[in-house]
Amino acid sequence: MRLRDVGEFGLIDRIARIAGPAGRPRGRAVVLGIGDDAAVVRARPGEDLVATTDALVEGVHFRFATQGARAIGARALAVNLSDLAAMGARPLGALLALAAPPGLALRTALDLARGLVACGRRHACPLVGGNVTRARETSLTVTALGAVTRGRALLRSAARPGDRILVTGTLGGAALALARAERRGARIAAAPEPRLRAGRILARTRGVGACIDLSDGLLADLGHVLEASGAGAELDVARLPAPRGFVAACRRLGLDPEELLLVGGEDYELLFTVRPGGPPASALARRLGVPVAEIGTVTRRGLSLRGARRPRRGGWRHF
Amino acid sequence: MRLRDVGEFGLIDRIARIAGPAGRPRGRAVVLGIGDDAAVVRARPGEDLVATTDALVEGVHFRFATQGARAIGARALAVNLSDLAAMGARPLGALLALAAPPGLALRTALDLARGLVACGRRHACPLVGGNVTRARETSLTVTALGAVTRGRALLRSAARPGDRILVTGTLGGAALALARAERRGARIAAAPEPRLRAGRILARTRGVGACIDLSDGLLADLGHVLEASGAGAELDVARLPAPRGFVAACRRLGLDPEELLLVGGEDYELLFTVRPGGPPASALARRLGVPVAEIGTVTRRGLSLRGARRPRRGGWRHF
Repeated sequence: MRLRDVGEFGLIDRIARIAGPAGRPRGRAVVLGIGDDAAVVRARPGEDLVATTDALVEGVHFRFATQGARAIGARALAVNLSDLAAMGARPLGALLALAAPPGLALRTALDLARGLVACGRRHACPLVGGNVTRARETSLTVTALGAVTRGRALLRSAARPGDRILVTGTLGGAALALARAERRGARIAAAPEPRLRAGRILARTRGVGACIDLSDGLLADLGHVLEASGAGAELDVARLPAPRGFVAACRRLGLDPEELLLVGGEDYELLFTVRPGGPPASALARRLGVPVAEIGTVTRRGLSLRGARRPRRGGWRHF
Repeated sequence: MRLRDVGEFGLIDRIARIAGPAGRPRGRAVVLGIGDDAAVVRARPGEDLVATTDALVEGVHFRFATQGARAIGARALAVNLSDLAAMGARPLGALLALAAPPGLALRTALDLARGLVACGRRHACPLVGGNVTRARETSLTVTALGAVTRGRALLRSAARPGDRILVTGTLGGAALALARAERRGARIAAAPEPRLRAGRILARTRGVGACIDLSDGLLADLGHVLEASGAGAELDVARLPAPRGFVAACRRLGLDPEELLLVGGEDYELLFTVRPGGPPASALARRLGVPVAEIGTVTRRGLSLRGARRPRRGGWRHF
């Protein structure tokens, strides 16, 4: 069966059933799910609403030939949840705008929805609405809605000279996995695990400054923080946290580990800054429940890389 | 200049400047606009959040050859604002996910944003965030965020047998304009004016039942209401409000006026139901500040068309 065989409303009905009983998933935040002119969600008193949108496009961000539709669907939500995490927000619900050719297999379209809904279940983010339309190529544009205590959203602009720079988890792993998969002619299927819990705890932690999620790569995303904050940074390359066996694996593939650590994207870890008097990395790791590494310091301007084996452009422009 | 000449961040910077000073448009609802991991907006105490998303795709919903980019951008927001209107919500802000080929003229992309932002200014709906990505075809996926007093959202499911059925404005005008334009090889450029004020007043008016905006056509959208409400309807075809000179214009083009009134889409008027003891159409028209016509009654089941010149299928399936 193809999308054209069930039509717009047939597809919406089926996606609504995947989303939850009668299209109204559980969750106290959901007042009205799929099936009306709009979704209605409810934050708690004293909370602000956080909203972000991100798209995955066939041939640009994924290929059906080498990736499972469920993994693509999960990823479409996960990258948005990572943005909520970087704001310190908790998810309320998500909207999916699905564009697809009429000849797309119904099963593929439903697997996209299934992957997205499964990811949402893991992170308490029900699918509450959306839209389907015809298009020449398939794309998933997801909007994630979240809530954060008023005035407590974690901003890119809140870094100050003297802050320590920290990251959750490890860096370079996604770029390494991508390089490995490309050599095999495949693409990686795993959706990132958004650091939602860590982000929410950071938003409540005294001394935390700026925060961003690492989608474009460490230097690019740190650059966004520094630009928004009007500051610079000194990074200690030797302290960048790599996955186990990372250097050896890079060498086997002829890749430069430093390069992957600094510019490899899609790790979806959180980079954040902490005031000099704030908690140390070890205390933060215990509190957040994830590894935390201190990798540098916010300075007044410029970007210097201590211990870098190769000189780099001093700026932080996207490259 | 093409999109590839300015890149993702160059385009975002330019769109942010169009959206407002430093990307932070005015409006008390906007806590944080373009430029962070997500936007932050604030509803008033006791309000629920309303969210809807809709996409316009090149070659499906618009063509650059025959439509101005500003009009396309305005329409992309307006169709979403119409969904907020149908919920009785006031706008808080909008997100734009823009997908476009790298070879698209920068000016065209910025005109899309200019049209959207101009439409947003007219309706107090600032552009607060979004995303840009490469794609083979251009598409604009807009998410509109709104707020409505808790428990007061206008639902499709709230029609009851005995309710009167009313519509704002006139029907068939958009379908007539489209038919005219297609004969000339053009497409219409005008963005609909979402009935936001009327929707907000309806949400506060005692005796109002269900509400939907007319995007798919009267019979299709009434069908959504009846399906959601588990009810039927009797429509009085002679009372369907047409634009001035509508019948003569249809005849000149060889079109069936009844057909356009019943199934012509994209009028973006509000269809709503009112309990038997609720205000009459004349009082509603004064209160809403727009023409209001009573066109039928909600029944227990089925759909009958009183005075129809041509028999129709009794159901309300999308056709």
